[in-house]
Amino acid sequence: MRAKRAIWAVAAFAVIALAIAGPQSCTRGPAGASVGELARERGLSEADITAALKTYLPTGQLDEYVMFSSGGHSGQVLVIGVPSMRLLKVIAAFTPEPWQGYGYGAGGTMEALEGGLVNGKEVLWGDTHHPAISETDGEYDGQFLFIDDKANARVAVISLKDFETKQVLHNPLMGSDHGATFVTPNTEYVIQSSQYAVPLDGSYADLSEYQERYRGAVTFWKFDRAAGRIDPSRSFTLELPPYWQDLADAGKGPSMGWVFLGSFNTEMATGGIETTGVPFEAGASANDMDYLHAINWQRAEQVYQSGNGLRRIQGMSVIPLDVSISEGLLYLIPEPKSPHGADVTPDGRMIVTAGKLDPHVSVYSFEKIQDAIANETFSGRDPFGVAILDFDAVLEAQVELGLGPLHTQFDGRGGAYTSLFIETAVAKWSLEDFTLKEKIGVHYNIGHLAAAEGDTRTPDGNYLVALNKWSIDRFMPVGPLHPQNFQLIDVTGEPMQLLYDMPIGIGEPHYAQIIKADKLDPWLVYPEVGFSPHAMASDPNAVSSGEERIERNGNRVDVYMTAIRSHFTPEHIKVRQGDRVRIYLTSLETIRDGTHGFAIDKHNINVSLEPGESEVVEFVADQAGVYPFYCSEFCSALHLEMVGYLLVEP
Amino acid sequence: MRAKRAIWAVAAFAVIALAIAGPQSCTRGPAGASVGELARERGLSEADITAALKTYLPTGQLDEYVMFSSGGHSGQVLVIGVPSMRLLKVIAAFTPEPWQGYGYGAGGTMEALEGGLVNGKEVLWGDTHHPAISETDGEYDGQFLFIDDKANARVAVISLKDFETKQVLHNPLMGSDHGATFVTPNTEYVIQSSQYAVPLDGSYADLSEYQERYRGAVTFWKFDRAAGRIDPSRSFTLELPPYWQDLADAGKGPSMGWVFLGSFNTEMATGGIETTGVPFEAGASANDMDYLHAINWQRAEQVYQSGNGLRRIQGMSVIPLDVSISEGLLYLIPEPKSPHGADVTPDGRMIVTAGKLDPHVSVYSFEKIQDAIANETFSGRDPFGVAILDFDAVLEAQVELGLGPLHTQFDGRGGAYTSLFIETAVAKWSLEDFTLKEKIGVHYNIGHLAAAEGDTRTPDGNYLVALNKWSIDRFMPVGPLHPQNFQLIDVTGEPMQLLYDMPIGIGEPHYAQIIKADKLDPWLVYPEVGFSPHAMASDPNAVSSGEERIERNGNRVDVYMTAIRSHFTPEHIKVRQGDRVRIYLTSLETIRDGTHGFAIDKHNINVSLEPGESEVVEFVADQAGVYPFYCSEFCSALHLEMVGYLLVEP
Repeated sequence: MRAKRAIWAVAAFAVIALAIAGPQSCTRGPAGASVGELARERGLSEADITAALKTYLPTGQLDEYVMFSSGGHSGQVLVIGVPSMRLLKVIAAFTPEPWQGYGYGAGGTMEALEGGLVNGKEVLWGDTHHPAISETDGEYDGQFLFIDDKANARVAVISLKDFETKQVLHNPLMGSDHGATFVTPNTEYVIQSSQYAVPLDGSYADLSEYQERYRGAVTFWKFDRAAGRIDPSRSFTLELPPYWQDLADAGKGPSMGWVFLGSFNTEMATGGIETTGVPFEAGASANDMDYLHAINWQRAEQVYQSGNGLRRIQGMSVIPLDVSISEGLLYLIPEPKSPHGADVTPDGRMIVTAGKLDPHVSVYSFEKIQDAIANETFSGRDPFGVAILDFDAVLEAQVELGLGPLHTQFDGRGGAYTSLFIETAVAKWSLEDFTLKEKIGVHYNIGHLAAAEGDTRTPDGNYLVALNKWSIDRFMPVGPLHPQNFQLIDVTGEPMQLLYDMPIGIGEPHYAQIIKADKLDPWLVYPEVGFSPHAMASDPNAVSSGEERIERNGNRVDVYMTAIRSHFTPEHIKVRQGDRVRIYLTSLETIRDGTHGFAIDKHNINVSLEPGESEVVEFVADQAGVYPFYCSEFCSALHLEMVGYLLVEP
Repeated sequence: MRAKRAIWAVAAFAVIALAIAGPQSCTRGPAGASVGELARERGLSEADITAALKTYLPTGQLDEYVMFSSGGHSGQVLVIGVPSMRLLKVIAAFTPEPWQGYGYGAGGTMEALEGGLVNGKEVLWGDTHHPAISETDGEYDGQFLFIDDKANARVAVISLKDFETKQVLHNPLMGSDHGATFVTPNTEYVIQSSQYAVPLDGSYADLSEYQERYRGAVTFWKFDRAAGRIDPSRSFTLELPPYWQDLADAGKGPSMGWVFLGSFNTEMATGGIETTGVPFEAGASANDMDYLHAINWQRAEQVYQSGNGLRRIQGMSVIPLDVSISEGLLYLIPEPKSPHGADVTPDGRMIVTAGKLDPHVSVYSFEKIQDAIANETFSGRDPFGVAILDFDAVLEAQVELGLGPLHTQFDGRGGAYTSLFIETAVAKWSLEDFTLKEKIGVHYNIGHLAAAEGDTRTPDGNYLVALNKWSIDRFMPVGPLHPQNFQLIDVTGEPMQLLYDMPIGIGEPHYAQIIKADKLDPWLVYPEVGFSPHAMASDPNAVSSGEERIERNGNRVDVYMTAIRSHFTPEHIKVRQGDRVRIYLTSLETIRDGTHGFAIDKHNINVSLEPGESEVVEFVADQAGVYPFYCSEFCSALHLEMVGYLLVEP
């Protein structure tokens, strides 16, 4: 099949190649225009033609990579094909989304969202920042995806079998997070660290008590791969100084067992522009150095398991600062200046940080860090007693790149790529000789970047995506809220080549990871009829064909319903006002294009029922009247006839 | 500028064209691959190369068209550039969306959503079906966009100045809608017709009373262009028989003043597969003919304004069926069989319907319809006394196209394009000789289609988008819920050429309209600092620089706050538990890349504050504690420092 196509393509190309010998003898495509005419008509340069051909996929041809991007304060995750830069799916994580039936009645999704209650309150959005693909031996394994909610200090677990969110968890110790989610090399733990400090116990404390009462924290959420869930009962947290911890990365290879967190506002500024005249952005940027936190999580795990010195705060196991200090779990490393990224190199030997107010990346040697710890080569201790490693003793190199360096990715060939926010460019530099190689301008104000397999031990080194901020003038304007702009860059050779601009019309992505598509093995339909996506197992309440019925018990009505194109059975549900109605709903479909929706008019209910799926929907029929319910997916020629009536007698 | 680029492009192309004389002498692009090598490598045919060049836009080059697509049961509207098929924005309409700050505290958006309360209940999703761009003289004018919510019988009004939803309205007479939204040629009215019949007064009635008590309806919502709102007090509704009315289209030119609605289930089947063994899809498909409804809305408007015979039902002015019959407002026209589309030709002389269970399109002459009405050439009356025009007397032609014809668009050159759902193809046929010209296969199961300027008096006839259903195997799989697939088709010549596949990873679009981009004139920032997007005027509560303050009145706390990069003023808000807090929030920014977010941790609040925007946020501080608030848009290098603390004293 493949060979056949290749031969045909060569033949087809021979015709084109021979015909395009000059503008006069251009061959004409089916639509009547030659390559040359088209290029002229559209103002395409040679580089544009190359880019067009590198990103264009004919109908049905599949992408080589899949990118998982945070959706920023949409609360969702974006799934994007690379190199076509097509948006394949928006996965609802923290924000209810009715097309997927997430949070609109389907029992499993309601349960997931309830896991994310914040102090008992429904918080129905999130500010997703950093997705992490599950890893095995430091390589993406394509099984799970994790994502955080900065605004509400939450973490979600998504299965890459059905691309649905299975679990949402709130971290009661944190006000907000930022160094989340990142995973350890075998997904032993999902890392979440705080951003803006608050009292860990959730109590009130005045800002005048900031240094005494406010704290940072890093939680190691234990991931149970078999259950596909985080297990809070086996998770632990380290108390941290009330700096504002930023991005994180786990060590690997030689640095396995460690994790590194950047931080800013080590000044412990508390703002108050209205009274002090000093806003946070000035107060938190006063020092020349902030601190990279080096944390020995494997030793911390032992301390946690020993139970020695732990505190129990809001149901969480916390290792207090003094224990972390005495047990050698936490060290600080000076890093210039208000840093953002902390990125471990693929070989695990170095950690790269970039201070957004400093033009350099700083590269630290893990070996030197270990030596400094062993030899107590400290330049002092912070106000909380944490040892500060001597900057010069642990620094491997600094490379001057330009203005506003934020985040670094790698190509697996010794190349490093750092985003320059202020300079609005990507800088390529060498991990071998620590020199700047080249820069490419992007449009505009790049935050993070993502390389193909970029956070693994073996990056692929072909594609890089620049996650730029507002596009301003790159696309047809759509009002004052401009889309962000993802730019695909070819990094196979030098110079880097800009291939494609992709507007992000939903959310404000912060970070992305790009996995080889063939590492993913999603279900195309559910494994069997009567499958519960929440339990990821057969649903004991699944309804078989012929078993449909309605049962009443007092004022509770249980409806056992099936869906198959083009009808629901039963089609009539008659209840009395005030009844509590529970509908067990099973799709009898087994083929790929057999999704049904189940919407009840005026009841805030919509379920997306994929082939084989079993769900339960519960509601109180609180208003008498006549309510059509219908299939909300265009499932067949008789889709509009796939309907029934909910009759609520007064 | 344009000329310069064109010359350069010609020069660049000459190099390519000369170089690609044969595989041996390929020129190399910046990334080291020739057009020929790339084409071979990617398996591209000559048609693929043409398609790639026709759809590729170099960075910063803008699309020629903008497509507004329904987002199906996502409840939103998708804005897509054509021909690049890039998703420019998801506009939140019925479903809260935090990135846009829609429904997460911002006062104007909360007010819009409250307009959509359903019998006093929050229904926080919608099933959007048919967007309609506002029209002047039968041409899209690019000022407003309307969209319906089938599930809850609602209509939303979106301003195309800032691409935000300004109004949501519930129609209490309907259970669900389908023939919505469509506009009359000067946007005098926004049309919404019901789908599944219910009692108009919202009361309970058993299905045994279906013919007596259940009814269809079509509402003409009066649009006040100056106010940018629908005015319910000047809107009226026609009672219709309890058929299931389907798609609608307004007459234009000679047929100005009329509107046409398809329908199905004229059998008035009431389903009940579980007891009768006859499901809805069989009962509602028994007859060979259903009815196209021809409605004289201009005369109906006069009847409404006269007040004669009107009924007031649930606050709406309703023209009863007997009045419609006696005043000549409503006629039925036989149409085969379970039809979907009803489309008026650009010249306004014909109406095209397609019965999804009949292989033909049926074309009706408006002139013949008028003659039949004038001469009372009726074949009978329906059970409600509505005159049925004689089929042969009003039919202009039937054209056999294939299986499952649904919806028709036009190219302005006498060409008509009809989607074939079952055959999964687009058929091109001629309005001049009523013959089938050609077909093109699509992937798969096309619902609607949208042509460039396709619903205007003067379609552009170059691009057509096939709105296909589940893509199944067209893209990298993302679990059992497959994306839909939009396919861009070049219809400038014959044969039609497939240019591009675009997965729809959010929602299930039903219909779209494509407008020339230069007809849109959106704001790039708000017109002035302190502008209210809800009032679309200066906000009297806008806060000026230097006027920031906090005022307490009993247990109410008013915060007057400004935002400018990179700080909020004030940065500290201290209140007592139980206080009602109102934050007046004004962006002092005036430049395009100056959007800020305003998120309060753990309070379900996120505002998107575009440059100049003024909003108000209100909440009860019901839990003591410390809550950071921060800018949720990456606005500057010191964005992470744009933060403050909400302190809630116990």
